[in-house]
Amino acid sequence: MPITLTTDFGLEDPFVGIMKGVILGLAPNVQIVDISHNISPQNIAHGAWVLQSALPYFPDKSIHVAVVDPGVGGNRRAIAVQTGKQYFVGPDNGILTPAITAKSKIVELTKEKYFLHPVSSSFHGRDIFAPVAGWLAKGTRLASLGKLIKDPVLLDLPQPSIVNKTLVGEIIHIDRFGNLTSNISRAMLYSFIRNPADLVLQLGRIKIQGLSDSYSSHKPGEIGLIINSWDKLEIFCRDGNASQKTRAVMGKTIKITRKK
Amino acid sequence: MPITLTTDFGLEDPFVGIMKGVILGLAPNVQIVDISHNISPQNIAHGAWVLQSALPYFPDKSIHVAVVDPGVGGNRRAIAVQTGKQYFVGPDNGILTPAITAKSKIVELTKEKYFLHPVSSSFHGRDIFAPVAGWLAKGTRLASLGKLIKDPVLLDLPQPSIVNKTLVGEIIHIDRFGNLTSNISRAMLYSFIRNPADLVLQLGRIKIQGLSDSYSSHKPGEIGLIINSWDKLEIFCRDGNASQKTRAVMGKTIKITRKK
Amino acid sequence: MPITLTTDFGLEDPFVGIMKGVILGLAPNVQIVDISHNISPQNIAHGAWVLQSALPYFPDKSIHVAVVDPGVGGNRRAIAVQTGKQYFVGPDNGILTPAITAKSKIVELTKEKYFLHPVSSSFHGRDIFAPVAGWLAKGTRLASLGKLIKDPVLLDLPQPSIVNKTLVGEIIHIDRFGNLTSNISRAMLYSFIRNPADLVLQLGRIKIQGLSDSYSSHKPGEIGLIINSWDKLEIFCRDGNASQKTRAVMGKTIKITRKK
Repeated sequence: MPITLTTDFGLEDPFVGIMKGVILGLAPNVQIVDISHNISPQNIAHGAWVLQSALPYFPDKSIHVAVVDPGVGGNRRAIAVQTGKQYFVGPDNGILTPAITAKSKIVELTKEKYFLHPVSSSFHGRDIFAPVAGWLAKGTRLASLGKLIKDPVLLDLPQPSIVNKTLVGEIIHIDRFGNLTSNISRAMLYSFIRNPADLVLQLGRIKIQGLSDSYSSHKPGEIGLIINSWDKLEIFCRDGNASQKTRAVMGKTIKITRKK
Repeated sequence: MPITLTTDFGLEDPFVGIMKGVILGLAPNVQIVDISHNISPQNIAHGAWVLQSALPYFPDKSIHVAVVDPGVGGNRRAIAVQTGKQYFVGPDNGILTPAITAKSKIVELTKEKYFLHPVSSSFHGRDIFAPVAGWLAKGTRLASLGKLIKDPVLLDLPQPSIVNKTLVGEIIHIDRFGNLTSNISRAMLYSFIRNPADLVLQLGRIKIQGLSDSYSSHKPGEIGLIINSWDKLEIFCRDGNASQKTRAVMGKTIKITRKK
Repeated sequence: MPITLTTDFGLEDPFVGIMKGVILGLAPNVQIVDISHNISPQNIAHGAWVLQSALPYFPDKSIHVAVVDPGVGGNRRAIAVQTGKQYFVGPDNGILTPAITAKSKIVELTKEKYFLHPVSSSFHGRDIFAPVAGWLAKGTRLASLGKLIKDPVLLDLPQPSIVNKTLVGEIIHIDRFGNLTSNISRAMLYSFIRNPADLVLQLGRIKIQGLSDSYSSHKPGEIGLIINSWDKLEIFCRDGNASQKTRAVMGKTIKITRKK
């Protein structure tokens, strides 16, 4: 049962290592996996998307700690969630939205004996979320951690829409290679357009036509479209950087129409 | 008993992975935790501060390897230290200063059978410190590693001082968010000033008044002061980057006076 | 038996964490070590050099996964290799060249029951290489993974040559400190020149004479030559950045002559 960490803490500072020290002090044999510590600083929606992309690949009993926490030290609650056989721990600010279903058990973390003391006002990753994950890994039951709640903060993650026969989405992640991941899933795309060769995508002033099967079906430097490993529509540049080439940033709108 | 690593090697190169290979070859089941590999290159004091910030959060029997080592291949000694129930391994150049107390047992690493051979002149992290940590994890006694010494190199980490009714400190760490950590601890601050609302901090041309309880008590873009998770005075910018906003760098002086 | 990862995926994105989730789902107790995720994007030769530098430091039964994979989704094969007591998994594009000897057993990965399904066209690290490594760690025999092949793609890694009494090599890696590693090994150098004090190295317009024993034998800011921890000739700048100072990039030619 690995414990995963998704934060905007970066790896330059000792924050992530300190969280691991706290976890291993409680659960010495647990495997800790970094999903990403490079969430755009304080961008809760970005953290939620990245967490969502990773969840299907972790085994049952995984404990996922997600900390993008601009409201740390304020009034926001801290929560732990059980959905199916996976566990989640983090601030109640929407970052756990992809982990929450109608069947989830959600607990507000109120039992201070599972925290580090004193609890700082700026690093609940260390003082609340890491120790709670450690206790869960030791076998502490979710219900013991606090009181059940039914009203977690849920994020309105941007969803594609169809406006005037145009499928409108946006860029939700830009990877190291400059590939642009949109919020348009394979299923959405195919329900909008039967023949992907007829697809025309507009991103700013750039138009791209047709969906490719693989990066390698393009020439170096060409911009293309693919359904990526996350099962979402992606804009890429073969052997290049689509983000630089298109100057697209996170949140940028894309529009898809059918070729006339 | 985790083994931690604190270095200025970065994560771009294979250096850190190679150290882990050496450790796991000796102690296959040990958990290895990265505290930070982004210590300012060859900045021994920065390594010492970062190590100090992490130590309290690791369990007994942890073995901490710290390598910021501008003198590698020269005459500086290699040492291992036992303080209480934690162990430390690194060059004898002051980086282990926060780990050394009057009660520490300190050994110069002279027993070459615990090294990799040949010992290179530029990568003792791999050839000396990683294997020694591995042998400690396997149960080798500290005293077996070499000869006891009493004169480790201790770093004169910059301490705040009071000059003309002004508490003078400096910036010792800048985190990923641009938050500026000073060397002024909570205890020092409160022994200097009774009412934190009366505090006036000067950083270059910028003046900040009063101490906050949390980031979220400020408006976005505002600069504020907080006692941070490291129990030190920190200058932050709510939803922004205090380092960029104030142009402060590591070592920059800060001055604290009482409001008149 | 650790599983190591060498990729050009970076650590910003969740790709590496997802691979670890897949591995731990199959082999929950395996130790996973990052060698480097900062291979120059799509630079297969760079990946091969970095893998080569790390291999000697890992124990028997290690499983090394290397993914620099510009041809992902195209026709290139996926392979697993056993050389001596170590295992290797990756695309058949030459990245495993340093791992392949005349005695290696090489298998094309064709048994789809060891893959994740569906296999995406852009992330075989997750769908093929991580699960195959996990199955190897669980004890699956190499021969079960597919069919034996004898014709792996081997990379023509740039080798030094002697032209007109000049030993000509090139820069194959630039580390975080700006140190320039060449492809000239200690053995090659000493077979070319008896007395290293007579060595003259030319890099662009810069000439450097003589080989040093350690960084610390130079003054701050001086450029020098050393046989580095990788047993290769390295150009360094004491307390500085040789890459910035010489403006050298990967692949840059260096020429060594004997002093007249």
